[in-house]
Amino acid sequence: MEPLETIEDLQYKGFKIYQRKDGFKFGVDAVLATYYAEQEIKAGQQILELGSGTGIIPILLAARTKDTHITGLEIQTEMAQMARRSVALNNLEERVSIEIGDIANCPADLIPKGAFHHVVTNPPYQKRGSGIHNPTDSKAIARHEILCTLEDVIALAARSLKEGGILTMVHRPERLCDIMTLMRQYRIEPKALRMVHPTPGKAPSMVLIRGTKGGNPYLKVEAPLYIFDNNGSESEELQQIYNRS
Amino acid sequence: MEPLETIEDLQYKGFKIYQRKDGFKFGVDAVLATYYAEQEIKAGQQILELGSGTGIIPILLAARTKDTHITGLEIQTEMAQMARRSVALNNLEERVSIEIGDIANCPADLIPKGAFHHVVTNPPYQKRGSGIHNPTDSKAIARHEILCTLEDVIALAARSLKEGGILTMVHRPERLCDIMTLMRQYRIEPKALRMVHPTPGKAPSMVLIRGTKGGNPYLKVEAPLYIFDNNGSESEELQQIYNRS
Repeated sequence: MEPLETIEDLQYKGFKIYQRKDGFKFGVDAVLATYYAEQEIKAGQQILELGSGTGIIPILLAARTKDTHITGLEIQTEMAQMARRSVALNNLEERVSIEIGDIANCPADLIPKGAFHHVVTNPPYQKRGSGIHNPTDSKAIARHEILCTLEDVIALAARSLKEGGILTMVHRPERLCDIMTLMRQYRIEPKALRMVHPTPGKAPSMVLIRGTKGGNPYLKVEAPLYIFDNNGSESEELQQIYNRS
Repeated sequence: MEPLETIEDLQYKGFKIYQRKDGFKFGVDAVLATYYAEQEIKAGQQILELGSGTGIIPILLAARTKDTHITGLEIQTEMAQMARRSVALNNLEERVSIEIGDIANCPADLIPKGAFHHVVTNPPYQKRGSGIHNPTDSKAIARHEILCTLEDVIALAARSLKEGGILTMVHRPERLCDIMTLMRQYRIEPKALRMVHPTPGKAPSMVLIRGTKGGNPYLKVEAPLYIFDNNGSESEELQQIYNRS
Protein backbone atom coordinates (compact mmCIF):
# COMPACT_ATOMS: atom_id res chain seq x y z
CA MET A 1 0.00 0.00 0.00
CA GLU A 2 1.25 3.47 -0.93
CA PRO A 3 1.65 6.20 1.72
CA LEU A 4 -1.57 8.23 2.22
CA GLU A 5 -3.73 5.29 1.14
CA THR A 6 -6.29 3.34 3.10
CA ILE A 7 -8.16 0.14 2.31
CA GLU A 8 -11.92 0.55 2.64
CA ASP A 9 -14.01 -2.56 3.28
CA LEU A 10 -17.04 -2.41 0.93
CA GLN A 11 -19.13 -4.40 3.45
CA TYR A 12 -20.16 -6.73 0.65
CA LYS A 13 -18.84 -10.31 0.39
CA GLY A 14 -15.39 -9.19 1.57
CA PHE A 15 -14.72 -6.78 -1.33
CA LYS A 16 -12.30 -3.92 -0.63
CA ILE A 17 -10.96 -0.81 -2.37
CA TYR A 18 -7.92 1.45 -2.09
CA GLN A 19 -8.63 5.13 -1.57
CA ARG A 20 -6.31 8.07 -0.92
CA LYS A 21 -6.75 9.72 2.46
CA ASP A 22 -6.48 13.15 0.81
CA GLY A 23 -8.22 12.28 -2.47
CA PHE A 24 -11.66 11.67 -3.91
CA LYS A 25 -13.61 9.06 -1.96
CA PHE A 26 -16.58 7.20 -3.37
CA GLY A 27 -20.00 8.14 -2.10
CA VAL A 28 -23.60 6.99 -2.15
CA ASP A 29 -23.89 8.20 -5.77
CA ALA A 30 -21.50 5.47 -6.99
CA VAL A 31 -23.42 2.84 -5.03
CA LEU A 32 -26.72 4.07 -6.47
CA ALA A 33 -25.39 4.18 -10.05
CA THR A 34 -24.32 0.54 -9.64
CA TYR A 35 -27.70 -0.41 -8.16
CA TYR A 36 -29.62 1.33 -10.97
CA ALA A 37 -27.46 -0.26 -13.68
CA GLU A 38 -27.36 -3.81 -12.29
CA GLN A 39 -31.14 -4.19 -12.59
CA GLU A 40 -30.75 -4.14 -16.38
CA ILE A 41 -27.52 -6.12 -16.71
CA LYS A 42 -27.70 -9.76 -17.82
CA ALA A 43 -25.12 -12.50 -17.29
CA GLY A 44 -22.24 -12.41 -19.74
CA GLN A 45 -22.67 -8.79 -20.85
CA GLN A 46 -19.89 -6.34 -21.76
CA ILE A 47 -20.03 -3.22 -19.58
CA LEU A 48 -18.16 0.08 -19.88
CA GLU A 49 -17.77 2.57 -17.07
CA LEU A 50 -16.74 6.12 -17.98
CA GLY A 51 -14.61 8.05 -15.50
CA SER A 52 -13.98 5.16 -13.13
CA GLY A 53 -11.81 7.01 -10.59
CA THR A 54 -10.88 4.64 -7.74
CA GLY A 55 -12.65 1.81 -9.60
CA ILE A 56 -15.53 1.62 -7.17
CA ILE A 57 -18.27 1.13 -9.80
CA PRO A 58 -16.41 -1.54 -11.86
CA ILE A 59 -15.60 -3.47 -8.67
CA LEU A 60 -19.15 -3.23 -7.29
CA LEU A 61 -20.58 -4.21 -10.69
CA ALA A 62 -18.28 -7.25 -10.86
CA ALA A 63 -19.31 -8.21 -7.34
CA ARG A 64 -23.04 -7.82 -8.01
CA THR A 65 -23.50 -9.20 -11.56
CA LYS A 66 -22.73 -12.63 -13.06
CA ASP A 67 -20.08 -13.47 -15.65
CA THR A 68 -19.89 -9.88 -16.92
CA HIS A 69 -16.80 -8.05 -18.08
CA ILE A 70 -16.35 -4.44 -17.03
CA THR A 71 -13.99 -1.95 -18.68
CA GLY A 72 -13.30 1.20 -16.68
CA LEU A 73 -11.96 4.30 -18.47
CA GLU A 74 -10.02 6.80 -16.38
CA ILE A 75 -7.87 9.72 -17.52
CA GLN A 76 -5.78 10.16 -14.37
CA THR A 77 -2.84 7.70 -14.47
CA GLU A 78 -2.23 7.59 -10.73
CA MET A 79 -5.95 7.03 -10.03
CA ALA A 80 -6.17 4.29 -12.68
CA GLN A 81 -3.11 2.53 -11.26
CA MET A 82 -4.65 2.56 -7.80
CA ALA A 83 -7.90 1.19 -9.30
CA ARG A 84 -5.90 -1.62 -10.95
CA ARG A 85 -4.39 -2.51 -7.59
CA SER A 86 -7.92 -2.63 -6.14
CA VAL A 87 -8.98 -4.95 -8.96
CA ALA A 88 -6.03 -7.25 -8.10
CA LEU A 89 -6.78 -7.02 -4.37
CA ASN A 90 -10.21 -8.54 -5.12
CA ASN A 91 -8.87 -11.10 -7.64
CA LEU A 92 -11.02 -9.54 -10.37
CA GLU A 93 -8.32 -9.28 -13.09
CA GLU A 94 -10.33 -11.51 -15.43
CA ARG A 95 -13.57 -9.55 -14.95
CA VAL A 96 -12.38 -5.94 -14.76
CA SER A 97 -9.88 -3.98 -16.84
CA ILE A 98 -8.99 -0.35 -16.18
CA GLU A 99 -7.91 1.61 -19.26
CA ILE A 100 -6.12 4.96 -19.12
CA GLY A 101 -7.72 7.34 -21.60
CA ASP A 102 -9.58 10.55 -22.28
CA ILE A 103 -13.39 10.55 -22.54
CA ALA A 104 -13.23 13.70 -24.69
CA ASN A 105 -10.78 12.18 -27.20
CA CYS A 106 -11.02 8.44 -26.92
CA PRO A 107 -9.40 6.35 -29.68
CA ALA A 108 -11.56 3.52 -31.05
CA ASP A 109 -8.77 0.98 -30.51
CA LEU A 110 -9.00 1.66 -26.77
CA ILE A 111 -12.83 1.62 -26.51
CA PRO A 112 -14.27 -0.14 -29.58
CA LYS A 113 -17.43 1.21 -31.23
CA GLY A 114 -20.74 -0.57 -30.63
CA ALA A 115 -19.11 -3.18 -28.40
CA PHE A 116 -20.95 -2.70 -25.11
CA HIS A 117 -24.35 -3.81 -23.79
CA HIS A 118 -24.32 -1.27 -20.99
CA VAL A 119 -22.48 1.95 -20.17
CA VAL A 120 -22.48 3.26 -16.59
CA THR A 121 -21.22 6.66 -15.47
CA ASN A 122 -21.03 8.93 -12.47
CA PRO A 123 -19.54 11.90 -14.34
CA PRO A 124 -18.36 15.26 -12.98
CA TYR A 125 -21.50 17.12 -11.93
CA GLN A 126 -20.53 20.75 -12.11
CA LYS A 127 -20.05 22.88 -15.19
CA ARG A 128 -16.60 24.15 -16.00
CA GLY A 129 -15.98 27.41 -14.18
CA SER A 130 -18.78 26.95 -11.65
CA GLY A 131 -17.55 27.06 -8.07
CA ILE A 132 -13.96 27.40 -6.91
CA HIS A 133 -11.60 24.64 -7.92
CA ASN A 134 -8.00 23.78 -8.56
CA PRO A 135 -7.91 22.32 -12.06
CA THR A 136 -5.01 19.97 -11.33
CA ASP A 137 -6.54 18.51 -8.19
CA SER A 138 -7.92 14.96 -8.54
CA LYS A 139 -11.00 15.81 -6.48
CA ALA A 140 -11.76 18.83 -8.69
CA ILE A 141 -11.35 16.67 -11.83
CA ALA A 142 -13.83 14.16 -10.43
CA ARG A 143 -16.38 16.85 -9.58
CA HIS A 144 -16.10 19.53 -12.30
CA GLU A 145 -16.23 19.32 -16.08
CA ILE A 146 -12.55 20.22 -16.36
CA LEU A 147 -11.30 17.42 -18.60
CA CYS A 148 -14.62 16.37 -20.15
CA THR A 149 -18.13 17.77 -20.52
CA LEU A 150 -21.47 16.03 -20.13
CA GLU A 151 -21.70 16.01 -23.93
CA ASP A 152 -18.32 14.22 -24.20
CA VAL A 153 -19.59 11.53 -21.80
CA ILE A 154 -22.89 11.00 -23.64
CA ALA A 155 -21.23 11.09 -27.07
CA LEU A 156 -18.73 8.37 -26.08
CA ALA A 157 -21.50 6.30 -24.46
CA ALA A 158 -23.54 6.51 -27.67
CA ARG A 159 -20.55 5.49 -29.79
CA SER A 160 -19.63 2.57 -27.50
CA LEU A 161 -23.11 1.04 -27.06
CA LYS A 162 -24.61 -1.65 -29.23
CA GLU A 163 -28.01 -0.78 -30.76
CA GLY A 164 -30.53 -1.39 -27.97
CA GLY A 165 -27.81 -1.04 -25.32
CA ILE A 166 -28.39 0.94 -22.14
CA LEU A 167 -26.74 3.99 -20.57
CA THR A 168 -27.16 4.40 -16.80
CA MET A 169 -26.11 7.68 -15.23
CA VAL A 170 -26.23 9.32 -11.81
CA HIS A 171 -26.19 13.11 -11.87
CA ARG A 172 -27.60 16.23 -10.25
CA PRO A 173 -31.24 17.33 -10.71
CA GLU A 174 -30.26 20.78 -12.00
CA ARG A 175 -28.67 19.14 -15.07
CA LEU A 176 -31.74 17.02 -15.96
CA CYS A 177 -32.68 19.11 -18.99
CA ASP A 178 -29.06 19.04 -20.25
CA ILE A 179 -28.95 15.26 -19.77
CA MET A 180 -32.25 14.60 -21.54
CA THR A 181 -31.62 16.87 -24.49
CA LEU A 182 -28.10 15.49 -25.01
CA MET A 183 -29.23 11.87 -24.66
CA ARG A 184 -31.91 12.39 -27.28
CA GLN A 185 -29.48 14.28 -29.53
CA TYR A 186 -27.15 11.25 -29.44
CA ARG A 187 -30.04 8.76 -29.99
CA ILE A 188 -30.04 7.44 -26.42
CA GLU A 189 -33.73 7.76 -25.52
CA PRO A 190 -34.39 8.38 -21.79
CA LYS A 191 -36.53 5.44 -20.63
CA ALA A 192 -36.40 5.45 -16.81
CA LEU A 193 -35.83 8.15 -14.22
CA ARG A 194 -35.65 7.90 -10.46
CA MET A 195 -35.24 10.89 -8.20
CA VAL A 196 -33.18 10.43 -5.02
CA HIS A 197 -34.30 12.56 -2.06
CA PRO A 198 -32.53 13.06 1.29
CA THR A 199 -35.93 12.54 3.01
CA PRO A 200 -39.54 12.16 1.74
CA GLY A 201 -40.29 15.88 2.13
CA LYS A 202 -37.12 17.31 0.56
CA ALA A 203 -36.18 18.23 -3.00
CA PRO A 204 -34.11 15.55 -4.76
CA SER A 205 -30.32 15.73 -4.48
CA MET A 206 -29.57 13.19 -7.23
CA VAL A 207 -31.18 11.72 -10.35
CA LEU A 208 -30.75 8.19 -11.65
CA ILE A 209 -31.47 7.90 -15.35
CA ARG A 210 -31.38 5.08 -17.89
CA GLY A 211 -31.63 5.47 -21.65
CA THR A 212 -31.72 2.99 -24.53
CA LYS A 213 -29.75 3.50 -27.75
CA GLY A 214 -32.39 3.73 -30.48
CA GLY A 215 -35.28 3.35 -28.01
CA ASN A 216 -38.79 4.75 -28.55
CA PRO A 217 -39.87 7.83 -26.60
CA TYR A 218 -41.66 6.88 -23.36
CA LEU A 219 -40.13 7.83 -20.03
CA LYS A 220 -41.07 5.85 -16.94
CA VAL A 221 -40.63 8.06 -13.91
CA GLU A 222 -40.33 5.68 -11.00
CA ALA A 223 -41.18 5.97 -7.30
CA PRO A 224 -38.78 8.24 -5.41
CA LEU A 225 -35.82 6.79 -3.54
CA TYR A 226 -35.32 8.22 -0.06
CA ILE A 227 -31.92 8.16 1.67
CA PHE A 228 -33.33 8.71 5.15
CA ASP A 229 -36.87 8.20 6.42
CA ASN A 230 -38.82 10.86 8.29
CA ASN A 231 -37.27 9.75 11.60
CA GLY A 232 -33.72 10.40 10.35
CA SER A 233 -32.84 6.70 10.04
CA GLU A 234 -31.34 5.27 6.86
CA SER A 235 -34.31 4.14 4.75
CA GLU A 236 -35.10 0.44 4.45
CA GLU A 237 -34.58 0.62 0.70
CA LEU A 238 -31.09 2.14 1.05
CA GLN A 239 -30.20 -0.54 3.59
CA GLN A 240 -31.28 -3.17 1.05
CA ILE A 241 -29.22 -1.49 -1.69
CA TYR A 242 -26.18 -1.60 0.61
CA ASN A 243 -27.03 -5.20 1.55
CA ARG A 244 -27.16 -4.17 5.16
CA SER A 245 -30.57 -5.62 5.94
CA MET B 1 -78.36 27.11 -18.23
CA GLU B 2 -78.38 24.73 -21.21
CA PRO B 3 -79.75 21.20 -20.89
CA LEU B 4 -77.09 18.69 -19.74
CA GLU B 5 -75.17 21.42 -17.90
CA THR B 6 -74.45 21.76 -14.20
CA ILE B 7 -72.98 24.63 -12.22
CA GLU B 8 -70.03 23.55 -10.09
CA ASP B 9 -69.15 25.61 -7.03
CA LEU B 10 -65.35 26.14 -7.04
CA GLN B 11 -65.33 26.35 -3.21
CA TYR B 12 -63.32 29.53 -3.48
CA LYS B 13 -64.80 32.98 -2.71
CA GLY B 14 -68.09 31.96 -4.33
CA PHE B 15 -66.66 31.35 -7.82
CA LYS B 16 -68.61 28.94 -10.03
CA ILE B 17 -68.26 27.24 -13.42
CA TYR B 18 -70.54 25.62 -15.98
CA GLN B 19 -69.69 22.06 -16.95
CA ARG B 20 -71.49 19.55 -19.16
CA LYS B 21 -72.74 16.47 -17.37
CA ASP B 22 -71.51 14.30 -20.26
CA GLY B 23 -68.41 16.33 -21.16
CA PHE B 24 -64.89 17.00 -19.96
CA LYS B 25 -64.78 18.06 -16.30
CA PHE B 26 -61.85 19.88 -14.76
CA GLY B 27 -59.61 17.93 -12.41
CA VAL B 28 -56.84 18.41 -9.90
CA ASP B 29 -54.40 19.00 -12.80
CA ALA B 30 -56.10 22.33 -13.68
CA VAL B 31 -56.02 23.40 -10.03
CA LEU B 32 -52.33 22.49 -9.77
CA ALA B 33 -51.43 24.28 -13.02
CA THR B 34 -53.08 27.43 -11.63
CA TYR B 35 -51.28 27.03 -8.30
CA TYR B 36 -47.89 26.54 -9.97
CA ALA B 37 -48.40 29.53 -12.29
CA GLU B 38 -49.80 31.98 -9.72
CA GLN B 39 -46.60 31.88 -7.64
CA GLU B 40 -44.81 33.65 -10.49
CA ILE B 41 -47.57 36.04 -11.58
CA LYS B 42 -47.37 39.70 -10.55
CA ALA B 43 -50.19 42.23 -10.32
CA GLY B 44 -51.17 43.74 -13.64
CA GLN B 45 -49.66 41.05 -15.87
CA GLN B 46 -51.06 39.77 -19.17
CA ILE B 47 -51.67 36.02 -19.08
CA LEU B 48 -52.51 33.58 -21.87
CA GLU B 49 -54.01 30.16 -21.32
CA LEU B 50 -53.80 27.66 -24.17
CA GLY B 51 -56.61 25.13 -24.56
CA SER B 52 -58.90 26.63 -21.94
CA GLY B 53 -61.79 24.16 -22.27
CA THR B 54 -64.49 25.01 -19.72
CA GLY B 55 -62.47 28.09 -18.69
CA ILE B 56 -61.48 26.67 -15.32
CA ILE B 57 -57.86 27.90 -15.38
CA PRO B 58 -58.65 31.47 -16.57
CA ILE B 59 -61.37 31.80 -13.92
CA LEU B 60 -59.20 30.38 -11.11
CA LEU B 61 -56.29 32.62 -12.19
CA ALA B 62 -58.55 35.68 -12.16
CA ALA B 63 -59.81 34.71 -8.72
CA ARG B 64 -56.34 34.12 -7.30
CA THR B 65 -54.20 36.91 -8.84
CA LYS B 66 -54.51 40.71 -8.69
CA ASP B 67 -55.39 43.07 -11.55
CA THR B 68 -54.28 40.58 -14.19
CA HIS B 69 -55.89 40.01 -17.56
CA ILE B 70 -56.29 36.45 -18.79
CA THR B 71 -56.91 35.42 -22.40
CA GLY B 72 -58.11 31.87 -22.90
CA LEU B 73 -57.72 30.21 -26.32
CA GLU B 74 -60.09 27.35 -27.13
CA ILE B 75 -60.76 25.67 -30.49
CA GLN B 76 -64.15 24.12 -29.69
CA THR B 77 -66.86 26.76 -30.22
CA GLU B 78 -69.45 25.20 -27.94
CA MET B 79 -66.89 24.79 -25.15
CA ALA B 80 -65.65 28.39 -25.57
CA GLN B 81 -69.23 29.71 -25.45
CA MET B 82 -69.88 27.82 -22.22
CA ALA B 83 -66.60 29.22 -20.81
CA ARG B 84 -67.76 32.75 -21.75
CA ARG B 85 -70.99 32.17 -19.85
CA SER B 86 -68.95 31.05 -16.84
CA VAL B 87 -66.87 34.23 -17.09
CA ALA B 88 -70.09 36.27 -17.07
CA LEU B 89 -71.54 34.22 -14.20
CA ASN B 90 -68.55 35.36 -12.10
CA ASN B 91 -68.63 38.97 -13.37
CA LEU B 92 -65.13 38.57 -14.78
CA GLU B 93 -65.78 40.04 -18.27
CA GLU B 94 -63.17 42.77 -17.72
CA ARG B 95 -60.49 40.34 -16.50
CA VAL B 96 -61.01 37.29 -18.72
CA SER B 97 -61.60 36.95 -22.45
CA ILE B 98 -62.14 33.63 -24.20
CA GLU B 99 -61.01 33.52 -27.84
CA ILE B 100 -62.03 30.84 -30.32
CA GLY B 101 -58.97 29.68 -32.25
CA ASP B 102 -56.57 26.92 -33.19
CA ILE B 103 -53.33 26.46 -31.26
CA ALA B 104 -51.77 24.75 -34.31
CA ASN B 105 -52.63 27.63 -36.67
CA CYS B 106 -53.16 30.71 -34.59
CA PRO B 107 -53.28 34.07 -36.40
CA ALA B 108 -51.19 36.84 -34.82
CA ASP B 109 -54.15 39.24 -34.81
CA LEU B 110 -55.94 36.85 -32.43
CA ILE B 111 -52.97 36.18 -30.11
CA PRO B 112 -50.35 38.92 -30.59
CA LYS B 113 -46.65 38.05 -30.62
CA GLY B 114 -44.55 38.79 -27.53
CA ALA B 115 -47.52 40.27 -25.66
CA PHE B 116 -47.77 38.01 -22.60
CA HIS B 117 -45.89 37.85 -19.31
CA HIS B 118 -47.07 34.32 -18.58
CA VAL B 119 -48.54 31.41 -20.55
CA VAL B 120 -50.32 28.60 -18.71
CA THR B 121 -51.44 25.32 -20.22
CA ASN B 122 -52.92 21.96 -19.33
CA PRO B 123 -52.64 20.49 -22.84
CA PRO B 124 -53.83 17.12 -24.15
CA TYR B 125 -51.56 14.52 -22.56
CA GLN B 126 -51.68 11.60 -24.92
CA LYS B 127 -50.04 11.27 -28.29
CA ARG B 128 -52.21 11.08 -31.37
CA GLY B 129 -53.22 7.50 -32.01
CA SER B 130 -52.43 6.27 -28.50
CA GLY B 131 -55.41 4.66 -26.80
CA ILE B 132 -58.94 4.40 -28.15
CA HIS B 133 -60.72 7.65 -28.85
CA ASN B 134 -63.44 9.27 -30.86
CA PRO B 135 -61.77 12.20 -32.61
CA THR B 136 -64.93 14.34 -32.62
CA ASP B 137 -65.65 13.88 -28.94
CA SER B 138 -64.88 16.91 -26.73
CA LYS B 139 -63.38 14.72 -24.01
CA ALA B 140 -61.06 13.01 -26.52
CA ILE B 141 -59.99 16.44 -27.89
CA ALA B 142 -59.11 17.56 -24.37
CA ARG B 143 -57.09 14.43 -23.64
CA HIS B 144 -55.40 13.43 -26.93
CA GLU B 145 -53.22 15.36 -29.35
CA ILE B 146 -55.93 15.27 -32.01
CA LEU B 147 -56.15 18.97 -32.93
CA CYS B 148 -52.74 20.09 -31.65
CA THR B 149 -49.45 18.49 -30.62
CA LEU B 150 -47.21 19.32 -27.68
CA GLU B 151 -44.92 21.08 -30.16
CA ASP B 152 -47.80 23.29 -31.38
CA VAL B 153 -48.51 24.31 -27.77
CA ILE B 154 -44.88 25.12 -26.95
CA ALA B 155 -44.31 26.91 -30.26
CA LEU B 156 -47.33 29.19 -29.70
CA ALA B 157 -46.28 29.80 -26.08
CA ALA B 158 -42.80 30.81 -27.25
CA ARG B 159 -44.23 33.16 -29.89
CA SER B 160 -46.69 34.76 -27.45
CA LEU B 161 -44.34 35.34 -24.51
CA LYS B 162 -42.32 38.47 -23.89
CA GLU B 163 -38.57 37.92 -23.48
CA GLY B 164 -38.13 36.74 -19.87
CA GLY B 165 -41.77 35.62 -19.73
CA ILE B 166 -42.76 32.31 -18.15
CA LEU B 167 -44.51 29.18 -19.43
CA THR B 168 -46.20 26.99 -16.79
CA MET B 169 -47.42 23.56 -17.83
CA VAL B 170 -48.96 20.51 -16.18
CA HIS B 171 -48.39 17.24 -18.02
CA ARG B 172 -47.64 13.54 -17.57
CA PRO B 173 -44.23 12.26 -16.39
CA GLU B 174 -43.79 10.01 -19.45
CA ARG B 175 -43.64 13.12 -21.67
CA LEU B 176 -40.98 14.91 -19.58
CA CYS B 177 -38.19 14.38 -22.12
CA ASP B 178 -40.47 15.59 -24.97
CA ILE B 179 -41.41 18.66 -22.92
CA MET B 180 -37.84 19.57 -22.00
CA THR B 181 -36.36 19.06 -25.45
CA LEU B 182 -39.17 21.06 -27.11
CA MET B 183 -38.98 23.87 -24.54
CA ARG B 184 -35.26 24.23 -25.09
CA GLN B 185 -35.71 24.00 -28.88
CA TYR B 186 -38.14 26.96 -28.68
CA ARG B 187 -35.86 28.94 -26.29
CA ILE B 188 -38.04 28.41 -23.22
CA GLU B 189 -35.49 27.15 -20.70
CA PRO B 190 -36.90 24.75 -18.07
CA LYS B 191 -36.25 26.44 -14.70
CA ALA B 192 -38.47 24.66 -12.16
CA LEU B 193 -39.96 21.18 -11.95
CA ARG B 194 -42.23 19.67 -9.35
CA MET B 195 -43.37 16.06 -9.43
CA VAL B 196 -46.87 15.29 -8.18
CA HIS B 197 -47.26 11.88 -6.52
CA PRO B 198 -50.49 10.14 -5.44
CA THR B 199 -48.74 9.27 -2.12
CA PRO B 200 -45.15 9.63 -0.81
CA GLY B 201 -44.18 6.09 -1.87
CA LYS B 202 -45.69 6.08 -5.36
CA ALA B 203 -44.35 7.09 -8.78
CA PRO B 204 -45.46 10.58 -9.88
CA SER B 205 -48.69 10.88 -11.87
CA MET B 206 -48.19 14.49 -12.99
CA VAL B 207 -45.36 16.97 -13.56
CA LEU B 208 -45.53 20.72 -13.03
CA ILE B 209 -42.93 22.60 -15.04
CA ARG B 210 -42.02 26.26 -15.52
CA GLY B 211 -39.69 27.65 -18.14
CA THR B 212 -38.40 31.14 -18.90
CA LYS B 213 -38.14 32.52 -22.44
CA GLY B 214 -34.44 33.18 -22.97
CA GLY B 215 -33.49 31.91 -19.49
CA ASN B 216 -30.12 30.41 -18.57
CA PRO B 217 -29.85 26.64 -18.06
CA TYR B 218 -30.34 25.68 -14.41
CA LEU B 219 -33.27 23.53 -13.42
CA LYS B 220 -34.52 23.66 -9.85
CA VAL B 221 -36.23 20.37 -9.04
CA GLU B 222 -38.46 21.12 -6.09
CA ALA B 223 -39.76 19.01 -3.21
CA PRO B 224 -42.42 16.52 -4.31
CA LEU B 225 -46.10 17.37 -3.99
CA TYR B 226 -48.21 14.56 -2.54
CA ILE B 227 -51.96 14.32 -3.22
CA PHE B 228 -52.65 11.98 -0.29
CA ASP B 229 -50.54 11.29 2.77
CA ASN B 230 -49.55 7.80 3.90
CA ASN B 231 -52.82 7.47 5.83
CA GLY B 232 -54.94 8.02 2.71
CA SER B 233 -56.07 11.52 3.74
CA GLU B 234 -55.75 14.48 1.38
CA SER B 235 -52.33 16.02 2.11
CA GLU B 236 -52.09 19.25 4.08
CA GLU B 237 -50.42 20.94 1.13
CA LEU B 238 -53.22 19.98 -1.27
CA GLN B 239 -55.78 21.26 1.24
CA GLN B 240 -53.89 24.57 1.32
CA ILE B 241 -53.80 24.71 -2.49
CA TYR B 242 -57.57 24.19 -2.56
CA ASN B 243 -57.95 26.75 0.25
CA ARG B 244 -59.68 24.14 2.35
CA SER B 245 -57.55 24.53 5.45
